[in-house]
Amino acid sequence: MQFTSERRLDDGVLEREFTLEEIPGILWTPASVSPPTSASAPVPLVLLGHPGGLRRMYPRLVDRARHSAAEGFAAATIELPGSGDRPRSAVAEQARADLRRVLAAGEPVGDEIVDRLVLPLVEQAVPEWQKTLDALLALPGIGGPVGYSGGVIAIGTRLAVVEPRIAAAILFAGSFVPRVLFEEARQVTIPLHVLLQWDDEGNDRQSALDLFDAFGSEEKTLHANMGGHTGVPQFAGDAAARFLTRHLK
Amino acid sequence: MQFTSERRLDDGVLEREFTLEEIPGILWTPASVSPPTSASAPVPLVLLGHPGGLRRMYPRLVDRARHSAAEGFAAATIELPGSGDRPRSAVAEQARADLRRVLAAGEPVGDEIVDRLVLPLVEQAVPEWQKTLDALLALPGIGGPVGYSGGVIAIGTRLAVVEPRIAAAILFAGSFVPRVLFEEARQVTIPLHVLLQWDDEGNDRQSALDLFDAFGSEEKTLHANMGGHTGVPQFAGDAAARFLTRHLK
Repeated sequence: MQFTSERRLDDGVLEREFTLEEIPGILWTPASVSPPTSASAPVPLVLLGHPGGLRRMYPRLVDRARHSAAEGFAAATIELPGSGDRPRSAVAEQARADLRRVLAAGEPVGDEIVDRLVLPLVEQAVPEWQKTLDALLALPGIGGPVGYSGGVIAIGTRLAVVEPRIAAAILFAGSFVPRVLFEEARQVTIPLHVLLQWDDEGNDRQSALDLFDAFGSEEKTLHANMGGHTGVPQFAGDAAARFLTRHLK
Repeated sequence: MQFTSERRLDDGVLEREFTLEEIPGILWTPASVSPPTSASAPVPLVLLGHPGGLRRMYPRLVDRARHSAAEGFAAATIELPGSGDRPRSAVAEQARADLRRVLAAGEPVGDEIVDRLVLPLVEQAVPEWQKTLDALLALPGIGGPVGYSGGVIAIGTRLAVVEPRIAAAILFAGSFVPRVLFEEARQVTIPLHVLLQWDDEGNDRQSALDLFDAFGSEEKTLHANMGGHTGVPQFAGDAAARFLTRHLK
């Protein structure tokens, strides 16, 4: 992990860009311990998921990172495979083109396209998040527990199954979910907080409810709110943050 | 409205039992303004719904009232028609017997039984809650805004339609809902916070989701949690209380 830039935000949060084997990422640490050292008490860490495109997503990511920092948590994110400055994959580009064509024609999106679109992404992204976690937890002053928040729900689901260091996860309903992930969802046991935008035009509500039902976690909560995909109300964001605080503190 | 008893709880909350035209009820006021006078700043009021049977429900009601009082709100409840010490209705008893028979036989509960069971209750209870509201708001030091919380969801829905003094409502999914209430739900415009116990054995989950969908409110939130009817987690109760605080303060 190479730090490539460093700046201090107006609220004292330290923002550092890094690369990890060509993958760009950002780490934010709270003002109180920035930079954290081996002498400071280790802070919990929140992995900030997103739909891809770090630059485009930056304003919302830094906002979520500041909220995490205010709770005393470090926060970090990495670029998704095939997004932002990372090389495109021919398979993914083809699947995306096929999806656009199906959506434009008003046809239902079949499992086959969803699998081609999402499964390679999950299979590449999840080990990258895990490698990032290795590197972040090796830094002085960053400890556990670790939370995961948002982004592509299929990635969050797989991570929650395979990564025992993740103690709790906030998931955003709204992306396409391959059938195999519904099976994996039954193996998830960590506390979950699922956000569903009830009128999300790009989201199949019933599929989101089915996935929520499938999760094996004893503690799982669904918060459904009005509005489209990006219209999560402030109070719902606050409630999600409270969930992580409850589990990471 | 006649106060019939008065006692001070250990946290200073003043609990007063009353009757209003034969209907028994309880009023709790915060320690800071107990009893409220015309000189004290008027406190918001929360109407505490319940499934009937004040004595049986008392432990949970007083707990909710204490939480309201801690926020600076008065809280009040009345007995439902046909419950507790109030006279039974032959029609309601017959409907209840028919429901028990249908449930015991494992048959689906038809609209006809639900209508016979719930509609007369709604039609009697709602004007009683309104009369109670008249009397409570005429007391010195009790003002608005008014919130409604819990109980039979059909009563809460009708109240939210017909009673403009109610500013926000918490509704518990879980009781039988006559079809006509789904139509009325579209007329509800106040902010709603709906609690759904995902594995509530006595509750039709799909019907609860349909009712949530039907509400006309621009701000409506569904919080679904694991567990049976009475297993609402502490954090979900806290979130519901936060909703009322946000709208009544």
